[in-house]
Amino acid sequence: MKIIVDTYGADDGIEIPIEGTIEALKEKDFIPVFVGDKEEIENIISQRIDIYEIIDAKDRIDNNEDPVRAIRKKKDSSLVKGFEKLNEDNYSGLISAGSTGGLLASGLFISGRIEGVKRACIATSLPTFENKTLLLDTGANMDCKAEFLRDFAIMGSVFAKNVLHIDNPTVSLLNVGVEEHKGNKVSKETYALLKDTDLNFKGNIEARDLFTGKTNIVIADGFDGNIAIKTAEGIISLLSKEIKNSIYKSLKTKIGGALLKDSLKENLSKYNTDDIGGAPLLGINQYVYKAHGNSNKKAFKSAILGLIDYINTNTIEKIRGELK
Amino acid sequence: MKIIVDTYGADDGIEIPIEGTIEALKEKDFIPVFVGDKEEIENIISQRIDIYEIIDAKDRIDNNEDPVRAIRKKKDSSLVKGFEKLNEDNYSGLISAGSTGGLLASGLFISGRIEGVKRACIATSLPTFENKTLLLDTGANMDCKAEFLRDFAIMGSVFAKNVLHIDNPTVSLLNVGVEEHKGNKVSKETYALLKDTDLNFKGNIEARDLFTGKTNIVIADGFDGNIAIKTAEGIISLLSKEIKNSIYKSLKTKIGGALLKDSLKENLSKYNTDDIGGAPLLGINQYVYKAHGNSNKKAFKSAILGLIDYINTNTIEKIRGELK
Repeated sequence: MKIIVDTYGADDGIEIPIEGTIEALKEKDFIPVFVGDKEEIENIISQRIDIYEIIDAKDRIDNNEDPVRAIRKKKDSSLVKGFEKLNEDNYSGLISAGSTGGLLASGLFISGRIEGVKRACIATSLPTFENKTLLLDTGANMDCKAEFLRDFAIMGSVFAKNVLHIDNPTVSLLNVGVEEHKGNKVSKETYALLKDTDLNFKGNIEARDLFTGKTNIVIADGFDGNIAIKTAEGIISLLSKEIKNSIYKSLKTKIGGALLKDSLKENLSKYNTDDIGGAPLLGINQYVYKAHGNSNKKAFKSAILGLIDYINTNTIEKIRGELK
Repeated sequence: MKIIVDTYGADDGIEIPIEGTIEALKEKDFIPVFVGDKEEIENIISQRIDIYEIIDAKDRIDNNEDPVRAIRKKKDSSLVKGFEKLNEDNYSGLISAGSTGGLLASGLFISGRIEGVKRACIATSLPTFENKTLLLDTGANMDCKAEFLRDFAIMGSVFAKNVLHIDNPTVSLLNVGVEEHKGNKVSKETYALLKDTDLNFKGNIEARDLFTGKTNIVIADGFDGNIAIKTAEGIISLLSKEIKNSIYKSLKTKIGGALLKDSLKENLSKYNTDDIGGAPLLGINQYVYKAHGNSNKKAFKSAILGLIDYINTNTIEKIRGELK
């Protein structure tokens, strides 16, 4: 299996995707295909991998440029070259920590949308107290119509069944209250559409239940989904800082911290985004994973392993079946 | 100063508003005017307050009913009777832990909107690592136009200056990225409007900075603001549970927890909503505070004290001045 690895896009430089790939190769067998500056890539690998390919690409698409214009103009960018290669036979999937907009535009214009899907979306696995919860969309679509959200629900259900191995996953709509009449225009319309599907729809859910594991799939537009995950990230990093500060206050608290450290780590590590790593771009004709921009090599490794599971379960074929 | 206290609406019953009021009376001098079931109220007070009034109201407006229809039909509800009394001379403010929709509808139809304000909104003080941050709207308006959000920014700035004592408060727009072109249709239009005001506008802010204290005022529509605060609440309660679980794991961790307890409490208590308690309903002609539905008596007390500060600073008059 050949996996295309975009070496640009990680905040901490091209070492992250390459080192993450080297880590992933210790757990799974695949052939990495690195896209980026050939010489730099060779230098970092420095003969630590036997079989790999490189697609030389000197240009990159940044977060602050218009993604559609960028993929049209920057033919030598790692994303454009990577996605073009992905359309060839024998290339199974692509992973990138780069701009969400760039990935989405490349997916839509180079890979193409699955027939019957109105919008592609990003599905993020949330850290939860128990069970598994998938939130989609978390940033691909800003202004959504109700039918886009229904597609997200269908694709999320297929992904949850196949990749996360959840039987008959429950689907909920992110809203400001649990009552059916609550919310904005789009959420009310979406509620009505979801009631009419064969999905295991459980109604509205409030944001405070995103991380309790109360439901398997939460549907939101990309604006709201993004606000939710970034709020959570902010609070988690803030409370970690407060916990550290409360440990480094005195000798007594330092001793307390030493005794508690392993146990705290065990309970809190799942809220660390490193273990989540990546999220699939659902709705396009190819297997594409978005790694977090601020990934470290461990997070990037997790994302590659997630992408391989996604490919192995043949999920895109199953989404096509559901949307026919 | 007479403060009208709605005794209905708190999840834990009418004791909460009454006991919260009794606590607040220990810190500030005011005359409470309780609205609700006269007999029940008298029973709970049981002569612990010397001077108070009661407005007998047997009916209540619930979270799950249409608020506009409810305030038209339920003339004997605590909210309708309370807001009507608030229009009389000598009644300075009203506080309720009841339905946001009911409060908003009562405010709009009974108190009336401030001239020039297109929508009223709820302004919530966030717990932050440092500084003070006010988020508005957090639930009053679901589908907002850009000019509504501009009004929120103006009202939030007046409130921050007067009640929170912040000089030249910074204003940011909640968005999915910091770049000007990011976001949905409404956020792009709002960005353009805010650039054109005299406010200290600092551009977009991502949700992960809501609690860092990076900016004083964050503007969002009521749907997104609500998602953000409820996500934060959810994560805070989840991590508190995980911390507790990691302490109660073994003798060693229990000792660690005992040594660390006070310090953790000192650092984390500000993220407890009890100390925030309430939020003003900005944009109407009367001083109204919304207390949290799941308030305990301490939270309700904090909310009453907040309402009194809000009244004493004559903030509504100043908002009228800014919006002329």
